[in-house]
Parts: sequence; structure tokens; C-alpha cells
Amino acid sequence: MSTLAITDRTRITRLRDRQVPDRRALHDVLDSALVAHVGVVRDGTAVVLPMGCARDGDGLLLHGSSGGGLLRAAATGAEITATVTVLDGLVYARTVFDSSMNYRSAMVVGVAQVLEDDAKVAGLRVLSEHLMPGRWDEVRPPTPRELAATLVLRLPLDEASVKVRSGAPSDDAEEPRDVWAGVVPLAVAVGAPLTGPDVPAAVEVPASVRALHRTLPGS
Amino acid sequence: MSTLAITDRTRITRLRDRQVPDRRALHDVLDSALVAHVGVVRDGTAVVLPMGCARDGDGLLLHGSSGGGLLRAAATGAEITATVTVLDGLVYARTVFDSSMNYRSAMVVGVAQVLEDDAKVAGLRVLSEHLMPGRWDEVRPPTPRELAATLVLRLPLDEASVKVRSGAPSDDAEEPRDVWAGVVPLAVAVGAPLTGPDVPAAVEVPASVRALHRTLPGS
Repeated sequence: MSTLAITDRTRITRLRDRQVPDRRALHDVLDSALVAHVGVVRDGTAVVLPMGCARDGDGLLLHGSSGGGLLRAAATGAEITATVTVLDGLVYARTVFDSSMNYRSAMVVGVAQVLEDDAKVAGLRVLSEHLMPGRWDEVRPPTPRELAATLVLRLPLDEASVKVRSGAPSDDAEEPRDVWAGVVPLAVAVGAPLTGPDVPAAVEVPASVRALHRTLPGS
Repeated sequence: MSTLAITDRTRITRLRDRQVPDRRALHDVLDSALVAHVGVVRDGTAVVLPMGCARDGDGLLLHGSSGGGLLRAAATGAEITATVTVLDGLVYARTVFDSSMNYRSAMVVGVAQVLEDDAKVAGLRVLSEHLMPGRWDEVRPPTPRELAATLVLRLPLDEASVKVRSGAPSDDAEEPRDVWAGVVPLAVAVGAPLTGPDVPAAVEVPASVRALHRTLPGS
């Protein structure tokens, strides 16, 4: 097990027993999420926006339009925070107070690197394979114009915290035993594909989409 | 797992991204989310953490332990940002570049008010009814000690942005028509309840939990 360094910024002050200082746990959370909430300080305000994400080794890849303000700031060396949360269940304790959620959450802080050239294409492929597994090989590769319109960032996983709650409710033994307690699991449901209106009837749903329920992170 | 029905929003109806400047859309997004990602600037860093949330009129309620650092900062007048994102689908275009997600996202910025006394209990009830509909009346009310250990904040919805992408992929008409394009809807799936290990066999799953698949936000 490789241990994550806990810094002042990533130390969890509340419910410290839920902090998991383990790199495998960090990878697990990041691999289970489709979207990160990315924060950057702009004019004194913490701007927080969702972005598609994917882990690549010890980095978290983020991408978006090269016209996006937050991403441009991140690309020019601004410190960013990427937080990912996976909801695993609603925890019904015998009291509202002890009720909770089961979740896995990770916060990564750092300065991201802009990927260029081959590394950029490789990063886009990792993102695509995470968000839409198998799709990359079903469509044509990106053109130079498309690549120029896209920013791909890699945030190193050097400074990160992971917080996890799992398992049954933990309420006081003095609470009445005739009140039900338990967990209702939550997950991502993948619906049946909706073919676009301009797709000829002869074009079949591709293998990547048919396999999606088996491969989607969090499912 | 019981898969939740596709709503009008996840059905393909529209063709392009757009910012939605209307309050009803803001309410819709907030009412569809269980968790907000809350950002606050601490020592120059945008700290971003997940928190259970619920809309109450023109405010967004957030709650947590009175020992939590971010919430304490918010309670003492620090500006906070609460961002909520609901993923409605994966958008498979004919190219990776035009592929996207259908989502509804809202960002609210402001200074939150700390709720006290009756307003605090009322706020906790709104949060509970949003996150675990029907549960409040099945369990005892919070004690003074429990209330003291909890912070409830109300962030006014005065400054907020909403961004929505919905509908079919929008790719270039020059892309080959023999490549499939469409949308795969995503939703929250509610699993079968898992009764806690210390619950006597005679205690039945309560009405709130049995009704959950019909009432969970995002369903």
C-alpha cells in the first residue's frame, strides 16, 4: 500500500476516522467517477465547475474547450482543486442525526500540466475510454483543428485526501430497537440507448454502447 | 437494482448547449441533486467538499457537523460557492470531439446565513425530507445536544448560473452517416434496502424506504 502524504490542505478535520490515506483508495474513487468538481480562485471567489475526468496513472486528466475560463486559468499555472464524489447509499439510522450517506470522495490539489502533441492525443484517448469505453476505436481520430480547440490538463495526484463512509448505520444502542435502520444502495443506472434522429435505420447500436452497462464506472 | 424511468429531460428533444437564465431551471437542478460541491477560499486555495443539500424556497440549505472546518468558515461570513451537477446522459456523437454529456448544473455564490432555533429545526426537516423523504415523521425529533452539534446554513439564491445540455448529439453533417450517434440516459438507481445487522426480524422496512424509488431526486 502506498500512503498519501496528508498536508494542512488535505487533512480532514471532521470525522478523521473516515480519512483513508491510501493511494489505492484514491484511485478507486477517481476511477468510479465521470465528473470532477474543479475549483479555482478567481477574484477572491472559489469558482467551482463540473468537468469530465479520468485517472491516468498518478494523474487526473481534465479536458474542455480551450475557450473555457476556468480551464484557461488552470492551463496558465493557477492552482486548482478537483473533487470527486461517488454516492453509494443512503444511510437510514434510527435518528435523523445519525442518518448519513455512504460515499467515497477525493480532493486533489495542485497545479496541472497542459498536455501537448502525442501526450494530448493519448490523454484524450484515456478520457474517452473512461467516459465512453470502446468508443475511441469506433470513430475517426481527432483532427488538428479539433485538437487545437481542446485543452487537456493533467493534475498530479501528489496532494490528495480521500474520505469514505461505508457500511451499516451507527446509532446509539439506547435508541429504540423497533425503529428500522439500514442502507439503501445508490448507483448509476444506464438507460436504453436513444438513437439520434438523423441516424439511418440500418445503422446498429455499436458494441461500445451495448456493453456500457457492464463497464460504466460506478455501476 | 430498480432502474428509474427516463424523464422528459433525458429524452432527446433539443440540439445544443445553452445557458438557462431562469429561476425555474435553477430550482429544477437544485431539486434534482442530493449533494452540492461547496467551495471556499482557504489560505489562497479553493477547498471543495461535498455536502448534502436541499432547496428551501429561494435558498439552498447545507448542513454538517459544527466541527467541520469549511462549514465553520461559511458560518462566520466567508463567501461560499455551491455547485450542483446532475448527469442525464452520455452523448455519443460521430466524433470524439463532438461527444459530450447531457447534464444540468448550477453554481450559487454568496454568503450563507446560519439558521438557529426553530428555523434550524425547520431547515433540518427540509433537508431530511429532500434526502430521505418521509423519514422525519418515522423517527424522534432531534435533541438539543444533537442540534448543538449540527450547523445548518442557508445560501440565498441571489447569484446563480445554470447550464444545461440536453438532447441529441450535434455533429457536423459532413461526418459519415454510417456511424451511430445517440444518447445513453443516466439516472440514479435505487437498490433494494439492506436492513442493519442489529434490527430485529420483526421490524419491517418502513413506508419511507419502500416509497423511495418513486421520490428520490433525479429519478
